[in-house]
Amino acid sequence: VQNNGLLEGIRNRRVPALAKAISLVENGRDGYEALLSALHPHVGRAHRIGITGPPGAGKSTLAEQLTRAYRALDLTVAVIAVDPTSPFSGGALLGDRIRMSSVALDSGVYIRSMAARGALGGLATSTREVCDVLDAFGFDRIIIETVGVGQSELKIAANADTSVLVLVPESGDGIQVLKAGVMEIADIFIVNKADRTGAEALMQEVDVMLGLRQGDARTHVAPHHAPSLLGSQTESPPSHVESVVWVPRILGTVAVRGEGVPELIEALQDHYSHLQASGELHTRRRERLERHTRDVVDRTLSTLVWQEGDGERILADGMDGVVKGVTSPYRLAQDIVAGVRRGGFSDEQ
Amino acid sequence: VQNNGLLEGIRNRRVPALAKAISLVENGRDGYEALLSALHPHVGRAHRIGITGPPGAGKSTLAEQLTRAYRALDLTVAVIAVDPTSPFSGGALLGDRIRMSSVALDSGVYIRSMAARGALGGLATSTREVCDVLDAFGFDRIIIETVGVGQSELKIAANADTSVLVLVPESGDGIQVLKAGVMEIADIFIVNKADRTGAEALMQEVDVMLGLRQGDARTHVAPHHAPSLLGSQTESPPSHVESVVWVPRILGTVAVRGEGVPELIEALQDHYSHLQASGELHTRRRERLERHTRDVVDRTLSTLVWQEGDGERILADGMDGVVKGVTSPYRLAQDIVAGVRRGGFSDEQ
Repeated sequence: VQNNGLLEGIRNRRVPALAKAISLVENGRDGYEALLSALHPHVGRAHRIGITGPPGAGKSTLAEQLTRAYRALDLTVAVIAVDPTSPFSGGALLGDRIRMSSVALDSGVYIRSMAARGALGGLATSTREVCDVLDAFGFDRIIIETVGVGQSELKIAANADTSVLVLVPESGDGIQVLKAGVMEIADIFIVNKADRTGAEALMQEVDVMLGLRQGDARTHVAPHHAPSLLGSQTESPPSHVESVVWVPRILGTVAVRGEGVPELIEALQDHYSHLQASGELHTRRRERLERHTRDVVDRTLSTLVWQEGDGERILADGMDGVVKGVTSPYRLAQDIVAGVRRGGFSDEQ
Repeated sequence: VQNNGLLEGIRNRRVPALAKAISLVENGRDGYEALLSALHPHVGRAHRIGITGPPGAGKSTLAEQLTRAYRALDLTVAVIAVDPTSPFSGGALLGDRIRMSSVALDSGVYIRSMAARGALGGLATSTREVCDVLDAFGFDRIIIETVGVGQSELKIAANADTSVLVLVPESGDGIQVLKAGVMEIADIFIVNKADRTGAEALMQEVDVMLGLRQGDARTHVAPHHAPSLLGSQTESPPSHVESVVWVPRILGTVAVRGEGVPELIEALQDHYSHLQASGELHTRRRERLERHTRDVVDRTLSTLVWQEGDGERILADGMDGVVKGVTSPYRLAQDIVAGVRRGGFSDEQ
């Protein structure tokens, strides 16, 4: 019942209701799925931007600069910093967040960090749900920043509409390591700290890799490479050209000085326009919703077994027998599953 | 009923029954869990050795040399080559397997490759089950070789009694990337191609890292570093010393020439003795069985929903409504879960 108040609060853009709703969702407290279910019809307006890349690449600085640029365009921005390796979450800001202090007091900006602990059914699922709350609240842009480029980060980044991969000249050989997975999901490549030695070489390297990727999966189209992009937009394609195939952009930035940020804003807008015009936005979102439904089913079953049900007790009681060989993992698993069946399912949703 | 024949065949060490049983388990065909359940009391005699490391480190060659050395000691050996990135599996041997031809015709050796496709409930679970069949058959040593060092490979390696990480001088900076996860699980570190430039430096690097690890989690004990180990055992600790804390070994090998293999055999035996004496073998195996029981529960529920149940149909029928906002992922998930409940659970196990 008190969650009805939350629903109204969010629809009326009240920040305290937003903070409460996010905590409710993040901690999986009573009624969180009912709230998300009620918010669902209001989700789908925000452009979700994932920023991923190795530690030290300048992702936080870039997120801050993007936020400032969007605010100058009068767009509201939510930033979620996701750290799959950290047990800390919720209201507590990550160390890096402090750097975002220039925008932290702006009422058109909401900053939140999330961590693995307490994420029911996985951090990717949980992050998707917090984004849904922010989307229903009415934020124009949602920036999802992950700390690294591991499997968990990739799963999170794959839920954005647009994925940005940030590299730095120092990562150098690192790109070889990143190849699998990360390269595939990125729509825009940033070479940050583009004023340093090796930036040009790194851009070339990404360029070659993208050429290979394109040659592989699609017709071969050379990516739009803007080698001396800082301050120059002459090599960017005109934004009214809507091609069916998105040609990944490679941009140079110096995030600490805000250089290259207008070009990034433009590339993000171009990608979003492309997603809309090509119908891919609809496809990506439908896939995201299907993935989410599957994840919710798995989480519901897991909760029924291990939290609401007797699963943990039956497991603990049965392990001695399994170790001694008196019973088997399979018979014990059957007992646990049968226990859920006897306990029945709750149909309150 | 025909699986009773398989059970007897395995208990009587008949190779055709073994091959049939492994196929049954790998493909999740009718009665595979009943067979595994019946084999369970006979599992637990084999020493399971995981070999992991970057591609090209010489894991296959090392596995072959280990196999030959164990055969010379009259021990039987099963080798499972696991490739999480490959869709090919079953009887077909991987390219690398050809190199094992020197032992492939020996009746005391069984070689099998496994891949992601068809692994119900994940490759780690499936690999554990194939190991159980080989263990119940009576193999003295089971070598589990993975192709790389990704998350999937780590999950597989974590199921072994002893984990061996193989590095080569060429991996050089690579060790920095490997740090998280891989370093933690390894009990024995191999620097293969130890006759090449950089081998000594790499051993030092691993040494430093282990020092940090030990200083972190346990009391600081310098690892036994055998810098010029080839042909010399003077720096190895006497194998009758059973310490409560296992001090990770660092060994140099030249696998193609069999150099360092006797020392590896000794280190593996020392680690196994340590596991037994410290009680850690029991702890590790109990944990493995608990993890396996949890995985089987998840797999059973997933099968009930998505394969035996109407989950896929309900999901497909409901997605349009979710996309339009008429219903939500949460209501659709509830329908899917309720469908499983109506369908009931099978209790045949």
